[in-house]
Amino acid sequence: MIDAHTKLCAVIGNPVEHSLSPAIHNAAFQSLNLNYVYVAFHVMDVAGCLAGMRALPSFRGMSVTIPHKRAVMDYLDVVDPMAVRVGAVNTITNEGGRLNGTTTDGPGALRAFAEADVSLVGKRILFLGAGGAVRSVAFAMAERANAAQITVLGRTASRVKELGGDLRAKTSADIATGDLGGDLAAAMTAHDVIVQGTSIGMYPNATEDSPIPCECLRTDHVVFDMVYRPLKTRLVREAEAAGCTTILGVEMLLHQAALQFEQWTGEKAPLLVMRRVLLDALAAGV
Amino acid sequence: MIDAHTKLCAVIGNPVEHSLSPAIHNAAFQSLNLNYVYVAFHVMDVAGCLAGMRALPSFRGMSVTIPHKRAVMDYLDVVDPMAVRVGAVNTITNEGGRLNGTTTDGPGALRAFAEADVSLVGKRILFLGAGGAVRSVAFAMAERANAAQITVLGRTASRVKELGGDLRAKTSADIATGDLGGDLAAAMTAHDVIVQGTSIGMYPNATEDSPIPCECLRTDHVVFDMVYRPLKTRLVREAEAAGCTTILGVEMLLHQAALQFEQWTGEKAPLLVMRRVLLDALAAGV
Repeated sequence: MIDAHTKLCAVIGNPVEHSLSPAIHNAAFQSLNLNYVYVAFHVMDVAGCLAGMRALPSFRGMSVTIPHKRAVMDYLDVVDPMAVRVGAVNTITNEGGRLNGTTTDGPGALRAFAEADVSLVGKRILFLGAGGAVRSVAFAMAERANAAQITVLGRTASRVKELGGDLRAKTSADIATGDLGGDLAAAMTAHDVIVQGTSIGMYPNATEDSPIPCECLRTDHVVFDMVYRPLKTRLVREAEAAGCTTILGVEMLLHQAALQFEQWTGEKAPLLVMRRVLLDALAAGV
Repeated sequence: MIDAHTKLCAVIGNPVEHSLSPAIHNAAFQSLNLNYVYVAFHVMDVAGCLAGMRALPSFRGMSVTIPHKRAVMDYLDVVDPMAVRVGAVNTITNEGGRLNGTTTDGPGALRAFAEADVSLVGKRILFLGAGGAVRSVAFAMAERANAAQITVLGRTASRVKELGGDLRAKTSADIATGDLGGDLAAAMTAHDVIVQGTSIGMYPNATEDSPIPCECLRTDHVVFDMVYRPLKTRLVREAEAAGCTTILGVEMLLHQAALQFEQWTGEKAPLLVMRRVLLDALAAGV
């Protein structure tokens, strides 16, 4: 029941009409009887949008998605150090007119690994891709995972070089880089955990593509594919068949939302409810 | 079910925590299956708030209440002529980043009269009070009711004089003014319709007070008391007992909200649902 005490949360993006966030967060609020409501705002004017949030103290939380994750940083009062290093904020919390920015993308991936009982300590982690999502997760793992090695392979040399340089400059992890075309097979041999962060296999592109040849998959590989449409990419299905431990992209989506929920409400996120809504929505093709 | 297509409406004010508007509007949206949600925002920074509304195209509608009805006018693209004359906007509609302001307070009162089948044509209308609510209704009646006479009696001579002067300057109605203390008895004799717009009898003040002595009430008087807490003021109860036609303040509250609803959604307001929610909330002492 929405009343005069209801707090507002929202996702902003452009486009944002296919966001699953309203469904996930509203279900979570309802399951804990919290007086919050979550909507989606298609936003072009980031400055105006954040001026509005600042002026509306009961506009408690904002999820920020493409293309605004960097732009919002100019209008916040505090940005947490990891988000500053990543250069992206996906979560804003309004503390009575004071806007705090954080990123839950990378920490959400770490929670997905923890929940799957996969330790990253001492592991050699291979990232495929060098885009925004990989950047978030690579920083979180470089800062917090105590991995032995982090390697980034990408298709665009300049982006790989930039991400590798940033990771080396801003973290103490052991960072390597390479070319996704030429260096993959050797890298698969030399790494334990594979984080797939390219758009290969992602709906509506060719969902029968996989960036990793079957013969490179070992039973002791952990394969995390950030793609969640389809729920199980060809890579995940082949990794399962090869006996690998797999982590689905939907788990990162879930946990980044759960961390947002916890920042805004101070309550532990109802993961079972949130996961069910997310899986239902993805199954329905929303 | 709130999703990524849900449109937002809200009331802004200070304070706003006791507003009945979220309950009324959400019930109306739900009864017509419209994908809207309505919240309340306690606002101090009107400029920031409206910058936010402008930047959020799915923030469709805003109800404006005390103390912001005049201040919002500086930030709108269009203000309708009646609202300009009244000097107050209670309704903002966001047309893709273009903010249109109107007032439904006076027109809401006119709809309450129409729904009660009380014609104002040729009538002599007496207003008690000269505050913001009277100002809205007096302008609406002076512009649209074809009344024979409009008289404003108040306790603060300067406000009465200002409202009378504005009504004379900006409308073609026949306007008189006077003192609520000295001129009431004679005015009651000379008028058909009484619009009670002072705070006398309003909760939490002395609800056993009435601005009109019983002996001044005639069976052919129409008595409209803008006060809606309590639902039936002492004046209304005594007017009923005297055989007057009465119109409750809650009806103006209902119809100003219904007109807002219609501006935002383009749908006819579900009056029965909205009235029931309003009466339930008032009965519950919300």
